[in-house]
Amino acid sequence: MKEVNQERVNRLIEGIAGFGKSEKGITRLAYSKEDFAAQKWLLEQIADLKLTVTQDAIGNTFLRREGKNSQLEPVAMGSHLDTVAQGGAYDGVLGVVGALEVLYMLQNEELERPVEVIIFRAEESTRFGFATIGSKIMAGVGSPEKFSSAAKKNEASFEECLKENGYNPEDYAKAVKQEGCFKCFLELHIEQGKVLDETGEQIGIVKNIAAPTRFKIIVEGIADHSGATPMDFRRDALVAGAKLILAVQEAASEESENGTVATVGVVETEPGSINVIPGKVTLWVDLRGVDSESIQNAMESINEAVSFVAEEDSVRITVDMLTSDEPVPLSEDLANIFEEICQEKEISYRVMNSGAGHDAMHMAKLVPTSMVFIPCKDGISHNPDEYASPQNIAVGIEVLAAAVMHLANE
Amino acid sequence: MKEVNQERVNRLIEGIAGFGKSEKGITRLAYSKEDFAAQKWLLEQIADLKLTVTQDAIGNTFLRREGKNSQLEPVAMGSHLDTVAQGGAYDGVLGVVGALEVLYMLQNEELERPVEVIIFRAEESTRFGFATIGSKIMAGVGSPEKFSSAAKKNEASFEECLKENGYNPEDYAKAVKQEGCFKCFLELHIEQGKVLDETGEQIGIVKNIAAPTRFKIIVEGIADHSGATPMDFRRDALVAGAKLILAVQEAASEESENGTVATVGVVETEPGSINVIPGKVTLWVDLRGVDSESIQNAMESINEAVSFVAEEDSVRITVDMLTSDEPVPLSEDLANIFEEICQEKEISYRVMNSGAGHDAMHMAKLVPTSMVFIPCKDGISHNPDEYASPQNIAVGIEVLAAAVMHLANE
Repeated sequence: MKEVNQERVNRLIEGIAGFGKSEKGITRLAYSKEDFAAQKWLLEQIADLKLTVTQDAIGNTFLRREGKNSQLEPVAMGSHLDTVAQGGAYDGVLGVVGALEVLYMLQNEELERPVEVIIFRAEESTRFGFATIGSKIMAGVGSPEKFSSAAKKNEASFEECLKENGYNPEDYAKAVKQEGCFKCFLELHIEQGKVLDETGEQIGIVKNIAAPTRFKIIVEGIADHSGATPMDFRRDALVAGAKLILAVQEAASEESENGTVATVGVVETEPGSINVIPGKVTLWVDLRGVDSESIQNAMESINEAVSFVAEEDSVRITVDMLTSDEPVPLSEDLANIFEEICQEKEISYRVMNSGAGHDAMHMAKLVPTSMVFIPCKDGISHNPDEYASPQNIAVGIEVLAAAVMHLANE
Repeated sequence: MKEVNQERVNRLIEGIAGFGKSEKGITRLAYSKEDFAAQKWLLEQIADLKLTVTQDAIGNTFLRREGKNSQLEPVAMGSHLDTVAQGGAYDGVLGVVGALEVLYMLQNEELERPVEVIIFRAEESTRFGFATIGSKIMAGVGSPEKFSSAAKKNEASFEECLKENGYNPEDYAKAVKQEGCFKCFLELHIEQGKVLDETGEQIGIVKNIAAPTRFKIIVEGIADHSGATPMDFRRDALVAGAKLILAVQEAASEESENGTVATVGVVETEPGSINVIPGKVTLWVDLRGVDSESIQNAMESINEAVSFVAEEDSVRITVDMLTSDEPVPLSEDLANIFEEICQEKEISYRVMNSGAGHDAMHMAKLVPTSMVFIPCKDGISHNPDEYASPQNIAVGIEVLAAAVMHLANE
């Protein structure tokens, strides 16, 4: 097996970064002309791999290298090329370019199975309000109609976007895959968190992908004059809200050894004036974990705090559930293979969970699936400052290549 | 002395409420055509009082009834006719209509001193960003230039507004009054808080007017992915902010027996997304009281909390002072006169502080000044639902009339 060609990997990542680049970062939204142009450019660059290129009914792209036995289920790898607005150069792109580099490394190897690289469409939720649309449709989760339901005013819905780009939304079922369609699916990705960057470990082997439970906590007190209302006459919705922000933090901290996290990302105060006691406060909460029981424990703690604070502060509090998904366990067998590879190559690693969602979540419904993380600087992602070093990228690709070599001959 | 004519008082309050009324409340901004029209209408209604009407250089209006000795300093009463956006019918208007009703009640009385009713301009800060402009200029506090500094984009500044309405801003110094220009100044007002409404007392005699100290607390943590950042890797600016919201509440509660209150009215979270840990939070704080030492104690407690939380949560916190005014003590002698009147008439009362600012704050710099509050329903003010009952209004006017009768013969 050949070594990682760092120069080629860098050239491809940088080349793709040019599509949608401005001084505010990279904006290459799903199905945009930049998205299509980036994919077209990439396929031209790797023409020497002589892969068979096919697209499904909604534009997911499959690049296939044959194996000795073309009847065997292929080993699949992949990720996505679309970005958030003002994003970075590595999220998604690394998994596509890394998978293609694996094919270069295995170019002279005889493999039993075919190997396929998948470029998923619309992984980011920026354009249509839904994430991982391409892999969801492959896994039979949701339809173009559903993914059109969050369309922004004056912008094309997902269905309209498909039509504009020559796809027939009614054909989407042709893109749905059967269970067992691949031998396995492997995704290389930057961590998008700072664990590996801070611990110095080179590889993260993902055990579970967390599922977000998202809800609003709405606190209703009484808006009063900030000067004319004595402290003991108040029903300050924000004071109650502050107690709940801390309760959310505490509930997740108590469950943190089980990988559960919780965040209040948004606070809305009404009327929101410096001289009026807040009468209504809305907290937007994101609770995630990989252990359903732990998530449930945290949710129960939060609900207890809601009852307690409502009584203590004489305010009305309601919890409005937005989404509540189940965490996705990845393949233990594949994780074991990655662990063995790291041990053999003396690469430091950590078995960890993914707090962010990925296409691998849905592929896991179809076939044994695994993910490998590499560190990204300061954990920064979805941001122009997103960065992964060439050394860390090379290690990630090396591990991926070794796994594919093994699995394609199994 | 004649009795309060409740029918006339109601008719005048309702009549004024018609200027600027819509289904969203009453909007009669300072110097607007509604403001001028309301004053013109009111003067027509009370023409039978045969008052001498004068205006100063910025439009404060003085309605004078002569006394036996026109050389003596007049007893002055008054308030304002302008409203906030979408305000109510009583704030300001009660003090003007009530003072005029006092003149009706005293119509057949011989008084030593003249009595004047002042209609102040621009008490509300809605239009120009500064409150009590009319009384500030009378007291020599600030200039039209200063009051133009917060002008809104595409709207007339205070100076431009003066010119548009036929006043010359350069003449403003002619409106400045000398110390001792009146015997005293008395203002009748709704409480704008819920103390009297909840205790059932009929009259509030104001001892001090609170001064606001306003500042921003800026918390800088680190914005991270809400799913991919374990609880112990976080520097969540909002968690630190929540601790400070509670610290502000506690600091004021500890000083509440000294009349100090504090409110966080606005919270800004950045980036403000459900899936991002807040990296920056700004709290807008309004701290008020009537006791400078107590305000200082509360401020010290808040500063201690700021240091403690910055260390505990490893975040950067800065306090940005916006305004810091001194509380204004009102006349004790006048308060005693009001107390005696209430006792004599068996009217329940409470000696209390005003959390809200009023024109009386600035008149107190010129002459002995007092304020009388009446209850308003649920403490609601600056709102279409603002309401004071005819019975409570009549009691307030009766007390005011008795005081004027007494003081105008002193």
